[in-house]
Amino acid sequence: MAMATSTPVEVLSAVFQVREPVDGRATLHVLLQRSGAAEPWALPGGDIGDRETLAAAARRHLGTQCGLTRVAHLEQLSVFSAPERIPGTRTIASTYLGLVPRDVPAEPETMDIDSPAAASWFDVDGLPPLAYDHAEVIELARGRLAAKLSYTNLAFALAPSRFAMSELSEIYGAALGHHVDATNLLRVLSRRGVVVATGTLGRTGRTGGRPPALYTFADDELVVTDEFATLRPPP
Amino acid sequence: MAMATSTPVEVLSAVFQVREPVDGRATLHVLLQRSGAAEPWALPGGDIGDRETLAAAARRHLGTQCGLTRVAHLEQLSVFSAPERIPGTRTIASTYLGLVPRDVPAEPETMDIDSPAAASWFDVDGLPPLAYDHAEVIELARGRLAAKLSYTNLAFALAPSRFAMSELSEIYGAALGHHVDATNLLRVLSRRGVVVATGTLGRTGRTGGRPPALYTFADDELVVTDEFATLRPPP
Repeated sequence: MAMATSTPVEVLSAVFQVREPVDGRATLHVLLQRSGAAEPWALPGGDIGDRETLAAAARRHLGTQCGLTRVAHLEQLSVFSAPERIPGTRTIASTYLGLVPRDVPAEPETMDIDSPAAASWFDVDGLPPLAYDHAEVIELARGRLAAKLSYTNLAFALAPSRFAMSELSEIYGAALGHHVDATNLLRVLSRRGVVVATGTLGRTGRTGGRPPALYTFADDELVVTDEFATLRPPP
Repeated sequence: MAMATSTPVEVLSAVFQVREPVDGRATLHVLLQRSGAAEPWALPGGDIGDRETLAAAARRHLGTQCGLTRVAHLEQLSVFSAPERIPGTRTIASTYLGLVPRDVPAEPETMDIDSPAAASWFDVDGLPPLAYDHAEVIELARGRLAAKLSYTNLAFALAPSRFAMSELSEIYGAALGHHVDATNLLRVLSRRGVVVATGTLGRTGRTGGRPPALYTFADDELVVTDEFATLRPPP
């Protein structure tokens, strides 16, 4: 076996949450941190410990840099290996997509009150200048999220545990960047068994009317829901 | 920014081709190599050069270890980072899925005639004992291939440039491990615009009858063909 070289490796996580800013329209946000006011904003991440997997390292950095511990889904994205992606020391980045449900309080807290380090959520359509190739990582993560919303149940990791379909369509709309019709969405997700009715009603919305039916995801881990019927094994 | 540690990284490729062994039934094969007769069979791979991307390193090792230069598709799989995956030096593996079309002659050749090193194609359902966690990498690659056959045009990288639908259904069947009906396959792939008729006819098959119509893939790069209609942006 050929010997592997000791190229430095870092882990980087693009973690999304659908959040409502001041104007009330829910949009997709990404978690960023910086080590000082003069540093560019960057994705949370860093080194991998000797006894640690990459996923464990990703979660550790999210905790220590951003105070975030409740990630409902974390999956590998691509490895970024362009030799010049970071000037100076050649470093390979193993990147992750993370998702936080809308009802999880996820206000980053600076771990050390005297530290100039900070963490914050940013609307993905209004990002500040970012370190190195981190904007590319975020674009890749957004694309992966949008693709997986179409053929898996991945929205479970963005949605609250129970939701009205109007709320779920807002979450899909925020993640996809375009309007998603709640009635169509319910029809498709029910037929596939992705969402199920809880038999309970929510609170009446801002516009009044009857209290909405509440739904939940049938699974809280990733399931591919839209397999190509022709290619299924014979029953 | 936290400094990244110098964990050694290797690249490993699971490259598949649908091949016909002696009994004539086409099955999925994977390319393996070993550095000597006493060594276990292993996936092609090794170090990453200072000025090289991971994909370039993967292609380099396929060429030098197996004599394979014509890979129609190469995509990243997961990074394998369990601390004990290789005893001794902790090494992270960045893994790739590669595909070779059925009509590409891809007989591995030992580069150095005096070398005890060898490369060979093996039926995925009859693998020899493999180095380290390489069997896991192959399983992951098979799963990824099967999933992508269902929602993308990825079979373009396994199929010859022109094919009868009976031949394409054999290729799907080999990759998926179960029978795929040629008529259903044509219906679905035509409707999605994945395959198109060439207007030419092939040779009459072993069982006689009319010469079959030949088809081709509309694209020779990866396209997601089965987006979730409800989630498409409004026209």
